[in-house]
Amino acid sequence: MTRKVGIIGAGHVGADTAFSLVTQGLCDVLVLIDENESKATSQALELQDMASFSSSRTAVIANNYAALADADVVVMAIGPKTLLREDRLEELAETRAVVSDVTPKIMASGFNGVIINITNPCDVITQVIQKVSGLPHAQVFGTGTSLDTARMKRVVGEFFNLDPKSVNGYVMGEHGESQFVAWSTVNVGGCPVSQLAGESQADWQALESSVRGGGWAILQGKGWTSFGIATATAQLVDAVLSDAQSVYPIAAWDETQQVYIGQPAIIGGQGVVKRLQPVLATEEAAAYRASAEIIRGAFESN
Amino acid sequence: MTRKVGIIGAGHVGADTAFSLVTQGLCDVLVLIDENESKATSQALELQDMASFSSSRTAVIANNYAALADADVVVMAIGPKTLLREDRLEELAETRAVVSDVTPKIMASGFNGVIINITNPCDVITQVIQKVSGLPHAQVFGTGTSLDTARMKRVVGEFFNLDPKSVNGYVMGEHGESQFVAWSTVNVGGCPVSQLAGESQADWQALESSVRGGGWAILQGKGWTSFGIATATAQLVDAVLSDAQSVYPIAAWDETQQVYIGQPAIIGGQGVVKRLQPVLATEEAAAYRASAEIIRGAFESN
Amino acid sequence: MTRKVGIIGAGHVGADTAFSLVTQGLCDVLVLIDENESKATSQALELQDMASFSSSRTAVIANNYAALADADVVVMAIGPKTLLREDRLEELAETRAVVSDVTPKIMASGFNGVIINITNPCDVITQVIQKVSGLPHAQVFGTGTSLDTARMKRVVGEFFNLDPKSVNGYVMGEHGESQFVAWSTVNVGGCPVSQLAGESQADWQALESSVRGGGWAILQGKGWTSFGIATATAQLVDAVLSDAQSVYPIAAWDETQQVYIGQPAIIGGQGVVKRLQPVLATEEAAAYRASAEIIRGAFESN
Amino acid sequence: MTRKVGIIGAGHVGADTAFSLVTQGLCDVLVLIDENESKATSQALELQDMASFSSSRTAVIANNYAALADADVVVMAIGPKTLLREDRLEELAETRAVVSDVTPKIMASGFNGVIINITNPCDVITQVIQKVSGLPHAQVFGTGTSLDTARMKRVVGEFFNLDPKSVNGYVMGEHGESQFVAWSTVNVGGCPVSQLAGESQADWQALESSVRGGGWAILQGKGWTSFGIATATAQLVDAVLSDAQSVYPIAAWDETQQVYIGQPAIIGGQGVVKRLQPVLATEEAAAYRASAEIIRGAFESN
Repeated sequence: MTRKVGIIGAGHVGADTAFSLVTQGLCDVLVLIDENESKATSQALELQDMASFSSSRTAVIANNYAALADADVVVMAIGPKTLLREDRLEELAETRAVVSDVTPKIMASGFNGVIINITNPCDVITQVIQKVSGLPHAQVFGTGTSLDTARMKRVVGEFFNLDPKSVNGYVMGEHGESQFVAWSTVNVGGCPVSQLAGESQADWQALESSVRGGGWAILQGKGWTSFGIATATAQLVDAVLSDAQSVYPIAAWDETQQVYIGQPAIIGGQGVVKRLQPVLATEEAAAYRASAEIIRGAFESN
Repeated sequence: MTRKVGIIGAGHVGADTAFSLVTQGLCDVLVLIDENESKATSQALELQDMASFSSSRTAVIANNYAALADADVVVMAIGPKTLLREDRLEELAETRAVVSDVTPKIMASGFNGVIINITNPCDVITQVIQKVSGLPHAQVFGTGTSLDTARMKRVVGEFFNLDPKSVNGYVMGEHGESQFVAWSTVNVGGCPVSQLAGESQADWQALESSVRGGGWAILQGKGWTSFGIATATAQLVDAVLSDAQSVYPIAAWDETQQVYIGQPAIIGGQGVVKRLQPVLATEEAAAYRASAEIIRGAFESN
Repeated sequence: MTRKVGIIGAGHVGADTAFSLVTQGLCDVLVLIDENESKATSQALELQDMASFSSSRTAVIANNYAALADADVVVMAIGPKTLLREDRLEELAETRAVVSDVTPKIMASGFNGVIINITNPCDVITQVIQKVSGLPHAQVFGTGTSLDTARMKRVVGEFFNLDPKSVNGYVMGEHGESQFVAWSTVNVGGCPVSQLAGESQADWQALESSVRGGGWAILQGKGWTSFGIATATAQLVDAVLSDAQSVYPIAAWDETQQVYIGQPAIIGGQGVVKRLQPVLATEEAAAYRASAEIIRGAFESN
Repeated sequence: MTRKVGIIGAGHVGADTAFSLVTQGLCDVLVLIDENESKATSQALELQDMASFSSSRTAVIANNYAALADADVVVMAIGPKTLLREDRLEELAETRAVVSDVTPKIMASGFNGVIINITNPCDVITQVIQKVSGLPHAQVFGTGTSLDTARMKRVVGEFFNLDPKSVNGYVMGEHGESQFVAWSTVNVGGCPVSQLAGESQADWQALESSVRGGGWAILQGKGWTSFGIATATAQLVDAVLSDAQSVYPIAAWDETQQVYIGQPAIIGGQGVVKRLQPVLATEEAAAYRASAEIIRGAFESN
């Protein structure tokens, strides 16, 4: 019955994902692992210092791969040494090496749950993890465009002066430069946004640029991003743990394109149940294929 | 800063709304009022017995209209003496008399917040309350088709084996027999449900009947319904208290039709900010007008 | 990983426990069983109608004993036909027969989790269930004086104008007339209440009468009690599911006295880990033994 | 009705306090201010990116002192430039200068709410803020030994293999080297810890050293501490916003000692309602006075 979650990487993203999980009481046991063991130990201590403030108990274990044997979910949150790179694909060589080293350690524990990958470049690294782990494609997925979708909801929400939660729709494609807002899926209260904008209309390209540049804007002022992706990940973890059969934008395996790529999919206890495959406008469908092409190129590059 | 909510009616619906608000810590002060004072007092005692279990404190006051003076929201949850009637409009004569008596008592306190009406027949009674209170139409709205929409999400979710939360769309019209599922607004993960159903297709009329008959099914086994509507109402209360600008299906005032009627609208701190008015299919638009006609007839009937 | 909870009895207490669990997202699968199958089915429908309002998904199953096979916790919430009896022990003959019939059905599923009993007279019925089930004493416990303790916190909190959550201490003994406030355990912020009261002092006996009569006061106005006990039970369920090792006042097995009786104990994933056995004042220790005597007499009575 | 909270300082502690408040939906409007404006803007953007994931809406405003005019609470979370100093009093000169500069800007907005100070050395800086602001002592308090108390609960919980939440008691005195565990207030389930330890007894001094060194251990591995104090602060903010009348260990004004110093006190909507002043053992009372002396010396030092 115990809901057990492992997090590999105790940097900003991994630690804030843990912080969100403990604050919300979304799991019962948390295993925190980092190459820098004293960092993971410190984060674990901090999370245990929270125990008397939270309504539900979460036990925290540090630096123990063996403890992943019966984990339900492992979150891969390994960051690169340098964050302020222009293009997410640049990080590939570095993070590919690290996850190729770490994944076998996870599997050696006997782990047979779901891996949720945050490590960038997200789509490619998710494929690397799946391949190295040997787990079925369904059991490995990436956070993909989940954060980009949240940013789209924020940007559209601000434009219409609306709660972002009331904006439906998806950013699809690469979690990177070639992503696109699938405007044909975006609506509010049953109204497509073009109808909602009325005659004044919106500068949709400007809005889309805001979405794409959202992470960059935060990086420059803060030096890293973590609250958004940590919260998105906590929600995905909860969807797996509760076998929710809920729809989220994630990096799912596309058999046709032979890549992991951002899109709406149903998430349950065994990972990805099904991709939704919304019917896209012609140019959106083209953007999706182009984005898949870029991801594929990156995966094959080194 | 204190978030103060009044609830008129300490029967199943009013008390369970209070239970949900306290469990979730959604308000700071709760005023519970019932014609049967000892019932309200008992419910208040029960809610205070919960205080040592909840993470956030909620003070509870019983039977004090004067305490509504600075309430942010008043929930009208007066039930009829008989619940198992075939048609919700039959309750009208009884509940119209009661709310016509109670509303002036609320206003006499100096109350100038938002009234959320649950009392059935919801659409007509909301209009009665608005008229008697003299509050602007925006500050008075009904729960309308919020619960019907939740049932539609449950029914569609069951059909596709999906989390109901992942189903978007609305039931519109009367909270009663003439309601309709606005299928043109219903989608999952950006896919219209007809696309999702594929070639096998669904018996949409059967699904719609399940939605419409959802309350009746519960009434027969349990004798009343309360958990669904209480939870829906708690969410609406939270939207007002946090000035959320969120979209919910509610009974909003339709200036053209001159009735309160179920539809998606934006809810903020002052009540209804704006109706969304999704573009409906021809037959849906007709159903909406027909439903408005029925509500109007009922309002004018006695 | 799935947290599965069964509830036997879909009346006020069982249903409100379910309502609280779903509202708080404390379990993933809920099995609701009642002799009156259509009642359980209706309650399950209501709980599923909430699915689109809650942040975490809970699946609900009705009337299926076989589904308890892998449940982590079963809550026994069978109510008597008549609630307004003067003494809780009077209910014994009726409820003993019912739980003696139901418990073998639970065990026949292969269930090997923790049973939390609410059914009154709580202490005696917990013993009946343990005996009939054949489960170790640790795996069966009752809600005992958990609600009485919450009422003591409310009453003391009102007296000192304090949040009940800030009152520490326990009501011990029978969940019934022979219970007592263990005043030597009651303190606020490290101050014994006698110190806090200062020279004015409190009428401790009057406060204790308020605690003991708390349920009766609610019964008279409302006809039943459920919010307090449902919330207490939800917290106990969470303690088991998260293997919390938390201290709660419950009806635990006292080997010396050979009865289940209310007292603080540590609750974990396998049920009762340990009784705390606070050192009581002489008259409190006598009250405890007297209360145990009454429970033992009742157990042996029929 | 809107619950508005300002946070001065968008570093780790201020931002994680904001993260915790938004994750838990504990306020409706958040004003984030930092000397480094682009840092505050970035943190605000991150918090808004969370909006579509959270159940309750929180609006976020950056860098606007005027927006504090109607804030209910302002959290002072200004960090020093250097964190890894041996003694918290060393930070004094630096942080005293900063809060002396910032506090008048808060007051110039017309603010008349409660200030909760986290900035170290916490006790002294709280006094500086009170003096500069001219607010009544009750309306200004510090987080004081709240985190130290949480660490004591963790350490004692680990020793007895118990949920830290089940450990009652307080760390008192300076939030710094001269703090002490008020062991006479520490108990579990009504049992003083000495009774619980039994014959084997615990090395209480070693446990106390663990508590005092808890922050240092985290600092070394992580470079800063934030999750614990952010969560403690979120709880205090909630206590003020809900006028909870709850008891928490904080740095409250001691009229006799003429310093702010850590101790249990009742917190309500106007800040500190009352100090609890538990009767301490002789050596504890001496430790309290000695700690007060150190704080007083530091306050008068420069």
